[in-house]
Order: sequence, then structure tokens, then C-alpha cells
Amino acid sequence: MERRSFVKHAGLAGILAAGSAPAFAQAQPEIKWRCASSFPKSLDTLFGTSEMITKRVAALTDGKFQIQMYAAGEIVPAFGVVDAVQNATIQACHTAPYYFFGKDPTFAFSCAIPFGLTSRQQNAWMYHGGGLQLMRDFFKGYNIYNFPAGNCGVQMGGWFRKEIKTVADLKGLKMRIGGTGGLVMQKLGVVPQQIPAGDIYPSLEKGTIDAAEWIGPYDDERLGLYKIAKNYYYPGWWEGGTEFDMFVNMKAFDELPKTYQAAFESACAEGNIDMQAKYDALNPPALRRLLANGVQLRPFSNEILATCYKTTTEVYDEIASKNANFAKVYGPWKEFRASQNEWFAVAENRYDGFMIAAQRAARTAAKK
Amino acid sequence: MERRSFVKHAGLAGILAAGSAPAFAQAQPEIKWRCASSFPKSLDTLFGTSEMITKRVAALTDGKFQIQMYAAGEIVPAFGVVDAVQNATIQACHTAPYYFFGKDPTFAFSCAIPFGLTSRQQNAWMYHGGGLQLMRDFFKGYNIYNFPAGNCGVQMGGWFRKEIKTVADLKGLKMRIGGTGGLVMQKLGVVPQQIPAGDIYPSLEKGTIDAAEWIGPYDDERLGLYKIAKNYYYPGWWEGGTEFDMFVNMKAFDELPKTYQAAFESACAEGNIDMQAKYDALNPPALRRLLANGVQLRPFSNEILATCYKTTTEVYDEIASKNANFAKVYGPWKEFRASQNEWFAVAENRYDGFMIAAQRAARTAAKK
Repeated sequence: MERRSFVKHAGLAGILAAGSAPAFAQAQPEIKWRCASSFPKSLDTLFGTSEMITKRVAALTDGKFQIQMYAAGEIVPAFGVVDAVQNATIQACHTAPYYFFGKDPTFAFSCAIPFGLTSRQQNAWMYHGGGLQLMRDFFKGYNIYNFPAGNCGVQMGGWFRKEIKTVADLKGLKMRIGGTGGLVMQKLGVVPQQIPAGDIYPSLEKGTIDAAEWIGPYDDERLGLYKIAKNYYYPGWWEGGTEFDMFVNMKAFDELPKTYQAAFESACAEGNIDMQAKYDALNPPALRRLLANGVQLRPFSNEILATCYKTTTEVYDEIASKNANFAKVYGPWKEFRASQNEWFAVAENRYDGFMIAAQRAARTAAKK
Repeated sequence: MERRSFVKHAGLAGILAAGSAPAFAQAQPEIKWRCASSFPKSLDTLFGTSEMITKRVAALTDGKFQIQMYAAGEIVPAFGVVDAVQNATIQACHTAPYYFFGKDPTFAFSCAIPFGLTSRQQNAWMYHGGGLQLMRDFFKGYNIYNFPAGNCGVQMGGWFRKEIKTVADLKGLKMRIGGTGGLVMQKLGVVPQQIPAGDIYPSLEKGTIDAAEWIGPYDDERLGLYKIAKNYYYPGWWEGGTEFDMFVNMKAFDELPKTYQAAFESACAEGNIDMQAKYDALNPPALRRLLANGVQLRPFSNEILATCYKTTTEVYDEIASKNANFAKVYGPWKEFRASQNEWFAVAENRYDGFMIAAQRAARTAAKK
């Protein structure tokens, strides 16, 4: 009801602005928002997607709904964007929600948690598995509506100066790692550090940290991490399909005309699929370039993955026992994950496995 | 240039229609389109996505751009939709482009071809790998713009009355199989038949066919195929990530105001991600129900997959040698597929493999 009365008011404002314009101008008031990103402009994948979304919103509303994007630090620091949206300093932000696991670890379900859902599974959970509703209930406490607005797929495990052969090799390692993954790593002796994109390279170069995970070949190459640490591990088991969100101040969104709400929602969904497609197109050639630069591609051993998985489950049980928000999401999320993996084990996994082997054989044959 | 002048013209028409309405009414003329689906209304996944898209378009345009959906056969037969769009009998259709491989096998690149791209890879190719441009060049010959508007992921290999243990068991099999997959099957002795969704069950029941592939657990369950043939094979190697398209008559699209064009494009992208999410959420519980109904889940053997892969490559080379349209797309597509599989073999595949094994172990432990 409040929204309806506001729309009417905005319509009146529109009429005043347009002078003698007739009643149907109500539907198209001019609205300007500010949206802060947690990422620098140089990341054309992450920052680029938020720009794609805001441009699309403008195109859908005939230029009437303008959302100005700001890079991390321009008007709000990278990790200050949630406070700014909550307090309505800005109307929206584009971020990786797990950055805010210190406020509440529940944030991370709208992003990535260790051994969590893959990109497709995350979308299934959000759009058709009850996830969006669960997360909306949670974010209400922050005056926020969350909109899935990007995904990068399974991340790489990051850059290590030294080889990591066993769990014991993790001990004492100072590592840049975001979100809940850091909590698990801490249990295994790692000293986790949350450092924004722009500061990772200098931290690794100066030796403030020994290792750093960021995203995957394309973004990692741009940060230049391969110039310092040559061991490139996979998979990033703490990010099986990282979702990036648009967070919007609830009052600001409720006050929008319905067509603008639809425009924002639709553009975010488009941004969601577009970012994943962009990463999937850009990562393969970037990986080839990295390998040509002497990067050593190394899988985490089964021992490391199994130990981390066990520790992760313990961490989740511990958090759930103390945090009702987390527990409320964790139960249904865990069931969803189980049923997803049961299904993906069938047609998807057999197809992927066959294709990877067939294409590898073709590459080998071509080299001969 | 032609489009611009037309939009201007449409704007003038809008002004005439609205009588004394002022100049900015140009942007929002009332437009009605008819869109025919190749699928029956009962398929809430396929037909449901086209409805989601058209409802979104209406919401984005304040109800001014109305696209009426028609189920297969209502105004155009399932396999007649391309002719109808080409001839401007209707403005748009929602279909699986490989149904039209008889017109030209090149159609199938915008859908699925055997041992082709997975859902994510298909999106990467279309949106950021040059695929959309290549396909737009091709579809120009049919007066059509294609828009990716749905994907179902890796399909199942279908329902077989008898077990298929070797390539020899395929000989003489009358099978419902769509698209290019049928061409490959034919080389291996299968008699392929293209039958629309609504007729598959009676054909299998009457024994007109011995086997039928449709999509995956959720849709297959609705067609009731498990009641007749209990052997459920995987993967559907002829459909690694089937894209469904909106085809639009070029003149009709060019005549739309720019905001409506944006609305249509954005809604299709949203439909694309939404359909995949819906399938991924619905398939796991459907598979469980099918298994509870006595369905036998069986993987195609390595011998069968390897032989089919080899035959597929021969079929592609043969088509490419005779068909310039196909050859123009096949070259870059093949390179893209190779580089995708090189990358997916790294983080994605190791993560999937670990998660599937870990969740399987958890299920086994829970049963004890």
C-alpha cells in the first residue's frame, strides 16, 4: 500500500516536472540512483556486468531510470557498500555477499560457501528451489532486497609461492581468502586475510601474504599474480559457483513504478547469465596464456579436499548451533545440494567426462 | 538506417492513433504480436518459459507490447512455425531450432548437435564467443532474428524397451529422435523418426517405435514413457545442452520501438537462465520418483559413446563439405568446443567430481 501511494506521488512529481503533460506520464518518472560496486573499474567482468545491468535498465525505461555506477572507493569503500545501502546513503550496490560474513555468516549463502552449489545449482536454488525467498527473509533485517546478478563458476584455488602437497603444508600460511573459506582454512592453520582486489598484488609482492586466491584465469591474469607465485591450484573448493548480487535498499525499490521494478529484476537476471557466459568465454584463452607464461597448474590432492570438506561440515554445524539465521537456511540448502549432486552425477557428469576425454584425445592426436 | 526511419514512422502512427497525445507518446505505442510454440501447453517447462518471457515483456512495457502465446497446433503446427515466421503469418515462435535441420543442418547450431556444447558453453558461445553473430548471419536467409530463450542442460538418452549393450543392438531400432542426432543414429542402423511431443507416448505404446528420447526426468515423467519402456539411458549425447530459441520475423522486430526491442531481448535472456534453473530444480525429484517406479537407469557404454562420437565427426565433415552455411559455423564452433573442454577439465570437472563422490558417500553413510 505504501508503494502504491508513493508511485502516485512520484507520478505527480513527474507531471510537475513535465509541465502540462497529461496523466499517463505517471508511468515514466525520471529517477536517478547511485550504485556502488565492491570492485575496481579495471575488472571488466565484475564491474562490467554491473554496468551492463544499469545500461540495460536505462534502455528498458527509455532513459528515464538512470543508475550511476561507482567503482570501489569512489563514493563508498569496497567493504562499506552494505552499510551504505542499509542506511540509504546509496540506493544499491553490486558485491560479493560473503564479504559480509563477519556481520552474519548467512550472507554467504547468497554468494558462495565452501563445497557449495555450482553456478547452475545456485541459480536453480535461487530461482526455483526456494533460495531467493529464504535469502529475502534474511536480508529484510538489513533493509535489503537481493538480486542474483552474476556468477563466475567454479573458481581456481589460487596462487601459492610454495607447493601445497599435504594439509600440513597449509599451516602458518598467510593467505588472501574471502568469506567462509577463510574460517575453514583457519581451522587448518592458515592465517586468512580479506583484502580487496586492488591490494592483492602488492600484498603478495611485499610478502605480507604467502598465497592469494582471487577468481579464475582471466581476472587473475589481470591482477598479475602469476608474476609472483607460479603454483596455480584448483579447484577453489570454497567457491563452487560464486554469485554476485545487486543489493537494493527496500524502501527505494518499493517506491519504484512497477515497470521499473520489472526492468531492474529482468536486467539483473540478464546480468547473471551474461557474466557466467563472459567468464566461460574468457577463461580458456587466459588459461592458455598463463600456461605459456610458465604457470604450474596443480590439483589439490584428495587428502586436502577430503580434510577441508570434513572441516567445513564441522564449521557449518558449529555456526548453525549458535546462529538461527544460518540454521534456517542451512537445513533446506543442504538437502537441495544433496539432491542436485545426485542428479548431476547422471547425464551431466557422464557427458562432461566423455567430452573432456574425447577432446583431450583429439588434442594429443593433433600434436603427433 | 532503415530501422531508424521506420521507428520514426511508427512513432508518427502512434501519435495519429492517440489523437491529441503529445510527442512523448511515441515511445509507447500499443503493439500486439502472435507467437506460436512448437510445444504443448502441458509442458510447463518449455511452454511455460515462453509464457514467462511474454508476460515479462508486457510487464516491462506497462502492458503496451502484448505477445499472445499459442501452443503447438493451435494456429500453426509444431513443425510449421519457422515457415510462419519467415512468411510473417506470425511475428514470432518459440521452438527447438534443430527440428528444422531438414531445411538446413545449420539450424541445429542454435539448439544442439551431437557431442556439442553444454548449457553454459552454449551461452558462452552465443553471448561472448561469436556464436550469436554467426547464427544471425545464417538466419537472415529466413528473415529471422534468433534469441536464445531457454536451455535444458544435458538430456537423457531416452527410453528403450530392450537393453542396448553394444552398437550392434542399435541396428533396426525404430527410434523417436530429433535433429542431427537422428542422422548419426541412421548411420548406425537406427530408423530415426521426428515425432512431436504429444504423439510420442501413443507411438511407443502401439509399437510404431521401439525407443524414444525426449528431454529429461521431469518432462519424460509427464509424457509417461516409463510406463512402457523401463530402460532409461544416459547421457543424451546428441543434446549436451539444448538451447530453445525465440525466432522473430526481422521486419516485425525492426519496426519495434527501441525500448520494446530491449524488453524482448532482456526477457529472452531471463527466460534462458530461468528455464535451465527450472529444469535443474525439477529434474532431481523427478528422477527419484522414476527410480521408485522401477525405472532402470543405464549409462551408454564407452564403446557406444566412442563409436557415436567418431560417426558424428564423419557426419559433420560430410555435411561441411557440401554445405557452405554449415562449414562457416562449424570451423569456429569446433575450435570453441575444444577450448571450452580444455578449461572445464580443470576447476569445474574436479569440483563436480569431488562433490558428487562426497555426496554419494554421505548418502551411503546415511543409509547404514
